[in-house]
Amino acid sequence: MNYYSESIQTLIEELSGLPNIGPKSAQRLAFHILNLPEKRVEHLANSILNARKKICFCKECFNLSDHELCQICSDEKRDTSTIMVVEEPSDLAAYEKTRQYKGVYHVLHGAVNPMVGVQPENLKLKELMQRLQREDVSEVIVATNSTVEGEATALWISKFVKQAGIKVTRIASGVPVGGALEFIDEMTLFRALEGRTEL
Amino acid sequence: MNYYSESIQTLIEELSGLPNIGPKSAQRLAFHILNLPEKRVEHLANSILNARKKICFCKECFNLSDHELCQICSDEKRDTSTIMVVEEPSDLAAYEKTRQYKGVYHVLHGAVNPMVGVQPENLKLKELMQRLQREDVSEVIVATNSTVEGEATALWISKFVKQAGIKVTRIASGVPVGGALEFIDEMTLFRALEGRTEL
Repeated sequence: MNYYSESIQTLIEELSGLPNIGPKSAQRLAFHILNLPEKRVEHLANSILNARKKICFCKECFNLSDHELCQICSDEKRDTSTIMVVEEPSDLAAYEKTRQYKGVYHVLHGAVNPMVGVQPENLKLKELMQRLQREDVSEVIVATNSTVEGEATALWISKFVKQAGIKVTRIASGVPVGGALEFIDEMTLFRALEGRTEL
Repeated sequence: MNYYSESIQTLIEELSGLPNIGPKSAQRLAFHILNLPEKRVEHLANSILNARKKICFCKECFNLSDHELCQICSDEKRDTSTIMVVEEPSDLAAYEKTRQYKGVYHVLHGAVNPMVGVQPENLKLKELMQRLQREDVSEVIVATNSTVEGEATALWISKFVKQAGIKVTRIASGVPVGGALEFIDEMTLFRALEGRTEL
């Protein structure tokens, strides 16, 4: 069964456990790693250990961070009166890449999904409420995904933010830039029509 | 520019350096790793370090091995009078998966390719010659790739194996199993015709 020596076999098995890496890719990666200079391999292994060890949640917004406060929350130029609520740290990164948003974030770490047992209390929603009471917030932008779970979560958030007397908005849903109408699903087209703006 | 904390950024960069892993996959992998239990992450990092540290060439066939002799060369049930010559350890693994071959191997670690400076002396060809003199070999099966480089290498090997008075064969070239003729290139079809066998 083992076509490789034990240490290679172990490496291939560990790599196959990663997402989107099948047995063939794992084998290719393993041989690539074995051909790298020993120093480079040490850098790779250390970067894995280091990231996992250092990482914690920002105590303010729950973004992944190496320190108590993440880079965004500790940046004094950011407007702390606007909070964008996202599901995951990767969503935050996606918005940061636009370089257009100057407010701060709040990472929920998921969306309400009763089918797999994710209830509102499993998300960082209580922490968001506390933040709204503690700080002077003028707007909460809900940027959860346009999925059933994301929409349900958005609804849930809008309810309690409104109760707190704070303005709550939802990012627009519509035709993506560069998207050809004929290939876009009906739900998106309907949303785009509903959300039309005057020219 | 940095949407992530330093340790995550470093991890993503290290992962992007691996083959077939673009920035998006690297990001997905990094977040996956950050979500794994710390023990699993240690296993992953250690398997990388371990494989790279332990690995050496089998002194007989130059397969990758954890020991002086690889598993195949140290297996007494293998027929040492038949040597299959392959370009890379992964080619050896591919043939091992068929479970049909009971002989031993010789890994060249490349193929003759003057365009990128790979000359016969850069491959484990001298070692193959020494092996043929040292051991009692009755057949050398040349299983280099069906590429220009692989064919050139095969020609080179056949010359000196014949000089040593040993039988030398080449694996068949033809239509792959399950292959529909209409989608197969002309060169392969020509080879398949040339190599036809009587039914």
